[in-house]
Amino acid sequence: MQDIGRAQAPIGVFDSGVGGLTVAAEIMRQLPNERMVYFGDTARVPYGSKSKDTVIRFSRQIIRYLKTWNVKAIVVACNTASALALPEIQKELDIPIIGVIEPGAMVAAASTKNGKIGIIGTEGTINSHIHTRLIKEQNSSFEVTEKACPLFVPLVEEGLFLDTPVVDTIAGHYLDIMKEKDVDTLILGCTHYPFLRETIGKVMGDRVRLVNPAYETARALGNLLKEQGIASEESPHDKEKQYIFSVSDEVQKLYQFAKNRFPFPVENALQINIEEY
Amino acid sequence: MQDIGRAQAPIGVFDSGVGGLTVAAEIMRQLPNERMVYFGDTARVPYGSKSKDTVIRFSRQIIRYLKTWNVKAIVVACNTASALALPEIQKELDIPIIGVIEPGAMVAAASTKNGKIGIIGTEGTINSHIHTRLIKEQNSSFEVTEKACPLFVPLVEEGLFLDTPVVDTIAGHYLDIMKEKDVDTLILGCTHYPFLRETIGKVMGDRVRLVNPAYETARALGNLLKEQGIASEESPHDKEKQYIFSVSDEVQKLYQFAKNRFPFPVENALQINIEEY
Repeated sequence: MQDIGRAQAPIGVFDSGVGGLTVAAEIMRQLPNERMVYFGDTARVPYGSKSKDTVIRFSRQIIRYLKTWNVKAIVVACNTASALALPEIQKELDIPIIGVIEPGAMVAAASTKNGKIGIIGTEGTINSHIHTRLIKEQNSSFEVTEKACPLFVPLVEEGLFLDTPVVDTIAGHYLDIMKEKDVDTLILGCTHYPFLRETIGKVMGDRVRLVNPAYETARALGNLLKEQGIASEESPHDKEKQYIFSVSDEVQKLYQFAKNRFPFPVENALQINIEEY
Repeated sequence: MQDIGRAQAPIGVFDSGVGGLTVAAEIMRQLPNERMVYFGDTARVPYGSKSKDTVIRFSRQIIRYLKTWNVKAIVVACNTASALALPEIQKELDIPIIGVIEPGAMVAAASTKNGKIGIIGTEGTINSHIHTRLIKEQNSSFEVTEKACPLFVPLVEEGLFLDTPVVDTIAGHYLDIMKEKDVDTLILGCTHYPFLRETIGKVMGDRVRLVNPAYETARALGNLLKEQGIASEESPHDKEKQYIFSVSDEVQKLYQFAKNRFPFPVENALQINIEEY
């Protein structure tokens, strides 16, 4: 049954920083009737090399903040937080929550031909081994190769060396093991990595499918909202309030990132003191 | 006059993470009678690309924490916090505080022969232009060239590509302007950069003096403590409590960094929830 009151409520989307905008953009594109509140923890970014306890503590604060917006569902648009915090925090919540790990793992398991899947991500994501567990649940004979690529996020954020031999060399080094293990499907397990898609594709070759979990996450969210009867079936009347963007550091960095890489306008963002939540 | 009670109190030293251990090590070496409480904000590291307001807020929390140890003086062992927060927070404090910027700028101004000084650091440090201001106060005809090198910290932390053409290429790119401007003195304005000293030296050539502010900061601290009559004149009796190390994320990362790069043992560290201060 459709719950019209809940259906009008926004979706909460959060990330350690601005990379999760790639997931937000997919939600905006695939689910144009939905409202959204985005939060990027730019004052404490990155999460990738921080401990599980710290990532859980930060995620709990953000969820308390998002709930002040009366969100109907939450998307963890950060691979590290999905890997480290989601298993814990979903037990504590009375609204649906999904991360970016499971949709990516599912599509990789469904796509592989030779049963050899690779996953690249931050140290936190990779050391959680959560992709491997999910993929093995689908088919225990699948072989999963994991590799942390800690320089990829700073390289994307620096921007200067993209499409130069510097990035080719670093990517070549990180991805060597993927070629050695003959993976035919590689999950881009960090929201920044799709910006390196061209280099990664060049290193891996045409034969290897690159999975960007943003697309699958937005699809999974759409299905979830429908199942729970809380999908918005009409476009919001107050269009200018459909999307709220918020960050914990100053808003200029968000605008700068969004302007270069985000297909929708980002403006009137809020700066939130997230430690107070 | 010597204040014996205060002299026995520890020095508080803080950094955005573990890089400030290079400054701590110099203090331990040059001032062996002093006690020290070190705090590294590893849960919120790095500060380098964050805004002034955020860095000031974080620094105030850390100073409140250090004061619970009854510290007699504070060293800001982080260039970004020294650049962005120190001018503001030193007005609020009733104990002496020094940063790493001024000692480095002073020695550079005193060492240059041709009056052309370079400074490399994080985005926050460079955009503050504080080195330039301090150097021009010494001699307004000096020419200062500034350059942010945002990939240097992640490269040091990754460790994999040190002494390879990848780092040579990146360093060459960042330092081009320094050679073009003919600097004869280059300040390593970030605690991580001394770990790249060899590469930076190779790119710049033998003729250029590299200034590591850690040494000068420890010297300036020693002078300050003597002037104020609060230098410790005898070795602490309880040696095992002379140095307290604390961090905001889990302690293992600190041990790992210290083991590879720190000349003193680091053990029994404390994990502090810094947001509560």
